Amino acid sequence: MKPPLKIAIAGLGTVGGGVVALLRRNAALLERHAGRKLELVGVSARDRKRDRGIDLGGVAWHDDPVAMAAAPGIDVVVELIGGSDGAAAKVVTAALEKSRHVVTANKALLAHHGTELALLAESKGVTLAFEAAVAGGIPILKALREGLGANRILRVCGILNGTCNYILTQMRETRRDFAAVLAEAQSLGYAETDPSFDIDGIDTAHKLALLAAVAFGSAVDFAGVHVEGIRHVSALDIDFAQDLGYRIKLLGLARMTEHGLEQRVHPCMVPLAAPLARVEGVHNAVMVEADFAGTVTLEGRGAGAEPTASAVVADILDIATGRGAPGFALPASVLARQPSAPIARHRGAYYVRLMVVDRPGVIADITAAFRDESVSMEQMLQRGRRPGEAVPIVLTTHETEEAAMLRAMARIEALNTVLEKPRTIRVENL
Amino acid sequence: MKPPLKIAIAGLGTVGGGVVALLRRNAALLERHAGRKLELVGVSARDRKRDRGIDLGGVAWHDDPVAMAAAPGIDVVVELIGGSDGAAAKVVTAALEKSRHVVTANKALLAHHGTELALLAESKGVTLAFEAAVAGGIPILKALREGLGANRILRVCGILNGTCNYILTQMRETRRDFAAVLAEAQSLGYAETDPSFDIDGIDTAHKLALLAAVAFGSAVDFAGVHVEGIRHVSALDIDFAQDLGYRIKLLGLARMTEHGLEQRVHPCMVPLAAPLARVEGVHNAVMVEADFAGTVTLEGRGAGAEPTASAVVADILDIATGRGAPGFALPASVLARQPSAPIARHRGAYYVRLMVVDRPGVIADITAAFRDESVSMEQMLQRGRRPGEAVPIVLTTHETEEAAMLRAMARIEALNTVLEKPRTIRVENL
Repeated sequence: MKPPLKIAIAGLGTVGGGVVALLRRNAALLERHAGRKLELVGVSARDRKRDRGIDLGGVAWHDDPVAMAAAPGIDVVVELIGGSDGAAAKVVTAALEKSRHVVTANKALLAHHGTELALLAESKGVTLAFEAAVAGGIPILKALREGLGANRILRVCGILNGTCNYILTQMRETRRDFAAVLAEAQSLGYAETDPSFDIDGIDTAHKLALLAAVAFGSAVDFAGVHVEGIRHVSALDIDFAQDLGYRIKLLGLARMTEHGLEQRVHPCMVPLAAPLARVEGVHNAVMVEADFAGTVTLEGRGAGAEPTASAVVADILDIATGRGAPGFALPASVLARQPSAPIARHRGAYYVRLMVVDRPGVIADITAAFRDESVSMEQMLQRGRRPGEAVPIVLTTHETEEAAMLRAMARIEALNTVLEKPRTIRVENL
Repeated sequence: MKPPLKIAIAGLGTVGGGVVALLRRNAALLERHAGRKLELVGVSARDRKRDRGIDLGGVAWHDDPVAMAAAPGIDVVVELIGGSDGAAAKVVTAALEKSRHVVTANKALLAHHGTELALLAESKGVTLAFEAAVAGGIPILKALREGLGANRILRVCGILNGTCNYILTQMRETRRDFAAVLAEAQSLGYAETDPSFDIDGIDTAHKLALLAAVAFGSAVDFAGVHVEGIRHVSALDIDFAQDLGYRIKLLGLARMTEHGLEQRVHPCMVPLAAPLARVEGVHNAVMVEADFAGTVTLEGRGAGAEPTASAVVADILDIATGRGAPGFALPASVLARQPSAPIARHRGAYYVRLMVVDRPGVIADITAAFRDESVSMEQMLQRGRRPGEAVPIVLTTHETEEAAMLRAMARIEALNTVLEKPRTIRVENL
């Protein structure tokens, strides 16, 4: 039997605790699967005295995680500190410099520095693995990289942030507005005190940038992600979505277009028949469209100590058995620098909600604006009649270019019968 | 760069053609992912003259697939002949004996001989890979074995036969009975002329035996699978399922119980809220319950030339890169021989449909039979009142042991107010 694989963990928050628990509880199973022991030899965290309810007997405590990463006798460093720079980046860099394998759940770090860190890992002949950075317990990176590795990927598309999906689900189920549901989610611990990373789509964008890199063999391009969050999704839009046969989801989507790699994070109208439409609450899901396999959807728990630990230790098992593939599917040195497709060139269908004065001629003005920009309308519905008062009108378009859509919306916004800024939500054909 | 990986394919039916097409069309992508060329060097099939619409230029034709498997200059033999014995078994054995890696889509062969073939492969230091044998384009074996490899698996459960799922979906959507939908499926080519392998659950049982072995680290035990097909599912039961909040699906389920490994294939009442309930038509899906990752569901195309080819070539990529894991997750020599849990010890809830004479006292007799066998009823509903005539009564039970249920049903069947053999469908808590 091979010698034990020696593991050190930097960061003992929720996920760190989960990884320690998994290594302990499933030790016998892991040894069978790896053909060797997985041995936790070192940990580092800010507060040594805090009771984490985990057994750290026989494990060396390091006050300095960077020193730990470079200390002798360690095969794998698990980075669970988080953040795109600072201590996490130092730990990962120090470990790779010393030719240690690195396993991390840190999507922010990889979204910003993934390609360079992968290059460093490869130059040292070690693995940089990050299954836990995307969609928690769902083994989506391995599925893309290996299980679907024979395919050209056409599109990848996911519900990647449980907080947003929980909020949107609650808004629909309880017919409350965004602010009320967010406040409740915060009080329940499902949303952070500063929720902007989640609800403004940044967390989803981090994960999407990693998914896209793996799916399309391209260098990580976080700056190329078009990002919109869910703050502007209203209870009214959720209601209309239902009437039109859609569900509103915050999606991260990537596909290769004639203008380059398109990466978008924004609320979407998802057809009710699509598997992603029925993914509710804190669950995550990723849909992959592949040239031979067709459409494959994976659904599961996208966050939390235990699912994330499952992904971290899966990466450790790959390292222990010597079957680690390059994290981004291809060696980092051959990842392509794809041009980034501008959102103005996006082609798709749109949902539009207008608040208008209920007065003859309003509809004619609106439809004229679409006609003048060559945007073809699919359907229109007005709910309620209140002559002379404000009423909502919603409509959907056929596929059109975003630039034309923006021009049409500028014309419509300028009409004096249109009372509020129009709300536009892209419709996704899934 | 490593030398090309030399591949020979035995069997050029639908899937064989798909594999050749994939190797050709995605050759550049495969070379990038594998770090070497994947080179098709030999093929063997029954009829050399048939036009398969695939490019076999530069590929050696072998009339005898067994001789091809043992011929020099081949690294991987892909077995796509099918069948549990005969030529397929000879090809696989010959290839392994000669220390060639084997990739196969043959669930029947592996369900019957999987453990011995894996032992032979390991004794020769080569890989026996069979992702394509279960759920076509869905990379479920890799997900179980590696992506969820750090978990103790609690239950695995899937819709594994597209023909059955198509028939059940059509029965529900068009409110027709089994025979009519089967005839139509046959005329459309969705069901075989002899459909018994599919509709009697045998194909699902083959796949379940493989899934269970991978999930529970146990030797393949096809004989231990309790199998029932869908011939007895009636339009009436599908209607009642809808009323009760269920959808009827043919599932393959495996879990470890105190009585041993439980493996069952039968129609199930699946709660509408469960992801598996919404998997319709020819799609397959597998749900895995794992101790750390929680519930993970994978859905996609379970059959057809292209999805199956995707899985075959994913296995070839693993071999080409040297990251092949043991097909059953553990070395075949350590696979446990689990006792098989008898179906009579199964614990679960049940749906029962009775055709009774609508007459006072009928319900009292039925409820007494359940009481006498300590089976606790959850709900009962009767549709329509026709005094003195035959009416259906349906009921569901709380969790109970199958043996008690059988005794209660024997009592009920003996009542002279009960006109037909009662129909029982297990309810699955998903």
